[in-house]
Amino acid sequence: MTRTIVESRTKTAVIGFDEPFCVIGERINPTGRKKLAAELEAGDFSTVERDALEQVACGATMLDINAGVVYNTNPDPNETEPPLMRKMIELVQGLVDIPLCIDSSVPGALEAGLSACEGRPLLNSVTGEEERMELVLPLVKKYNVPVVAISNDDTGISEDPDVRFEVARKIVERAADYGIPAHDIVVDPLMMPVGAMASAGQQVFALVRRLREELGVNTTCGASNVSFGLPRRHGVNAAFLPMAIGAGMTSAIMNPIRPVEMEAVRAANLLMNHDPNGAAWIAFSRVLDAVEAGTPFPEASKAALEAGAGGRGGRRRRG
Amino acid sequence: MTRTIVESRTKTAVIGFDEPFCVIGERINPTGRKKLAAELEAGDFSTVERDALEQVACGATMLDINAGVVYNTNPDPNETEPPLMRKMIELVQGLVDIPLCIDSSVPGALEAGLSACEGRPLLNSVTGEEERMELVLPLVKKYNVPVVAISNDDTGISEDPDVRFEVARKIVERAADYGIPAHDIVVDPLMMPVGAMASAGQQVFALVRRLREELGVNTTCGASNVSFGLPRRHGVNAAFLPMAIGAGMTSAIMNPIRPVEMEAVRAANLLMNHDPNGAAWIAFSRVLDAVEAGTPFPEASKAALEAGAGGRGGRRRRG
Repeated sequence: MTRTIVESRTKTAVIGFDEPFCVIGERINPTGRKKLAAELEAGDFSTVERDALEQVACGATMLDINAGVVYNTNPDPNETEPPLMRKMIELVQGLVDIPLCIDSSVPGALEAGLSACEGRPLLNSVTGEEERMELVLPLVKKYNVPVVAISNDDTGISEDPDVRFEVARKIVERAADYGIPAHDIVVDPLMMPVGAMASAGQQVFALVRRLREELGVNTTCGASNVSFGLPRRHGVNAAFLPMAIGAGMTSAIMNPIRPVEMEAVRAANLLMNHDPNGAAWIAFSRVLDAVEAGTPFPEASKAALEAGAGGRGGRRRRG
Repeated sequence: MTRTIVESRTKTAVIGFDEPFCVIGERINPTGRKKLAAELEAGDFSTVERDALEQVACGATMLDINAGVVYNTNPDPNETEPPLMRKMIELVQGLVDIPLCIDSSVPGALEAGLSACEGRPLLNSVTGEEERMELVLPLVKKYNVPVVAISNDDTGISEDPDVRFEVARKIVERAADYGIPAHDIVVDPLMMPVGAMASAGQQVFALVRRLREELGVNTTCGASNVSFGLPRRHGVNAAFLPMAIGAGMTSAIMNPIRPVEMEAVRAANLLMNHDPNGAAWIAFSRVLDAVEAGTPFPEASKAALEAGAGGRGGRRRRG
């Protein structure tokens, strides 16, 4: 059974075929968030702090950290992104204790993140492009960390799932040349918007099964991409996640602050027999009750976590 | 590709591997509905009428009709159920035009339903019990209708999915002896509550794949059974349905008046590439918008159907 081990200084998370779905919180990313980008350029990290705390309260397994701000004062990300990545990692790991995912297309920012991060973070990402593999795989080996492998290469993103499978296989084989085992590679088979490509959902479900059975790797994707351009996106996402989990997908980069999607993930965990005695579902049902009564989801989640901790303490004292 | 053809006097529904999920409306059933049972015994069919119209408006593909009232005045269902079944079928098919599913454990009620029903109804059900097969399969042959086959036999309901698969195989083979083709058998692999049997979900997903690949049959189940005894049942149902659809399940007996479950089914159709151009999803998204604004789901659905019909008429006139 494939198990990808990711660690913070104090906590271990396992991405695995027999584990609850790994929710990688996507919020700490200035891409498409103008206000956050401006704050980061101005040295204001209050939104990062809030996003870190809220995502953890809502049940994220890991947090993605992306420092891809295009500075108005300096347009070269090779200069600006590495120090910002370092700063953001230090800040977040000082605030929360779950493992991190270092997300950048700038090699210097990946290395800055790796040197700043305690434990065993997930590196996001390598692709099948020759230059990327040559730059990123040595870092993966040097720091002994797992890596997200995205199924595109120098020819771009293929619409043919067989081509995307072969790109994934190429990355796994190249990684093996560096001594990196398949269980440290988490393949992103690339989820296209189903509104643009009607077969995109079925493609990914079939790809996930093959990646799991033939390459023995864990899988991930940017889950909300599936519903891009459609109305009532949360409904599409909330059906996609259980279907992907049923097909064998083991993680997603997603927004844990959305109760509809988190409900879908937790129900899917229960249905996959990855929730012993339904304990997580039953605890989560109380959070949903509170949300229905008007409490914001992050607050309701935080209250449930604290009550759960108190409850356990109480039982221990009686025991 | 397996296709099970079900017909009313005027409409055809196809249960099939390449079709949108077939929603068999479960509401017209007095089991566990004391008020409805009392109404039916008193000859009051107003709830049946409302349930028929609402389920069709909300998007049911077929309607299940069950006349299993235990009369206070006559405890023998062999006497009371056949005439009530006939009456209910006549009433419902006079009111709505989608195909029906004749649901009874009383052979006389099945035959009364078959003789009253126009078109090609689905018969619900035969099991692997010898006596049931001997009583029901000749009716299936005589009326040339498809039948639901439930995977239990004289030894009861096995918790072992391999045994349930073999029961299904036995029914398919016995049906073949009568000249009934596999594509006229819709197997119910029996969905146990996941709160009572933690592996129940995974069992059914695996069984559905095998039934489809090895026996070439369509499948169904009583979908809401999965969440029996759990809190926030709709959330579990709404994750189960997409997972079952992703595994290849082609129909379910369920409550179409629940928007959460219908949203899950429609999103799963879209993700399975069974919703050309996303037209059904986009139309449904407007219904959900109306529900969010306070309109009851059946009313919002009915309004959308009428607006859609008007719109198509308009386009035809312009064309």
